Amino acid sequence: MKAIRILGVDTSLRSSGVAVIEVAGRQVRALVYGRIKNSSSSPHTACLAEIHRQIDALITEFSPDEAAIEGAFFAKNAKTAMILGQARGTVLAACALRGVPVFEYSPRSIKQAVVGSGSASKEQVGKMVARLLGLAEITQDDAADALASAICHSHQRALPEALRSKPV
Amino acid sequence: MKAIRILGVDTSLRSSGVAVIEVAGRQVRALVYGRIKNSSSSPHTACLAEIHRQIDALITEFSPDEAAIEGAFFAKNAKTAMILGQARGTVLAACALRGVPVFEYSPRSIKQAVVGSGSASKEQVGKMVARLLGLAEITQDDAADALASAICHSHQRALPEALRSKPV
Repeated sequence: MKAIRILGVDTSLRSSGVAVIEVAGRQVRALVYGRIKNSSSSPHTACLAEIHRQIDALITEFSPDEAAIEGAFFAKNAKTAMILGQARGTVLAACALRGVPVFEYSPRSIKQAVVGSGSASKEQVGKMVARLLGLAEITQDDAADALASAICHSHQRALPEALRSKPV
Repeated sequence: MKAIRILGVDTSLRSSGVAVIEVAGRQVRALVYGRIKNSSSSPHTACLAEIHRQIDALITEFSPDEAAIEGAFFAKNAKTAMILGQARGTVLAACALRGVPVFEYSPRSIKQAVVGSGSASKEQVGKMVARLLGLAEITQDDAADALASAICHSHQRALPEALRSKPV
């Protein structure tokens, strides 16, 4: 079975989690994980450009076959949704420009896929992600969420085609 | 006085108005205007990639010094705001990656700048934009709005520095 690589992104303007995992049959390993940090004093446009550049650089370095992002279905209000939407649009465009299909999962589905419960805490997600990937503690929540999104997608890919989610 | 070029964008996922004007003293002319059309059947990611490519191509061809976009401060709800935010983020990142500062204006300020009334109709905006630029009728509302954003910014640039808007 051919190994496939999945880019996971937990998007936000100031600190997006990013990760690439490689899945070969039942073997899953993390190739890279971390975050795209933007200073709180940077203008929005500079943050968005940095997000684009970093996603593009990850695609160049790790050639992911597909990407998985956490869908933000529950933005508090229109202003928050707009700001988050801008960051997400930048990630989506960066992937699409490089021909990487993006799949979206709700926070609940991601927790369900990783921990087995849609209402799991951040700590539980972090611990389970580390265990599944054979990593020491993952100190960054954003990075753990990005890994969790990628793992969630790897489970989806194992389903019969009719049951799989469609790219956004 | 050095001529400056302003890219105007009226962003939306399916049909963004785009325009570049050149301003030299009191002379203003349109170098290009039109829209970025995306089919209603295209996935969001494909639309965003197309928006990025077209904005990038306009920057390459016309070398605008600055960009002006209509700020969407009144999205109806979080879902609409998210979708519009994704398109806006793509435009902002495309400009920022090429070093083009982006300025944002409310629909009201743009109408005020062009027609003299913040509650002007689309028809009034279209007619006045055509008149100011010496163009025949502008049949696309999106393109007229993009031209209007650019004109609004050209007025702002004429103000004393302390009164000008800041880039986003």
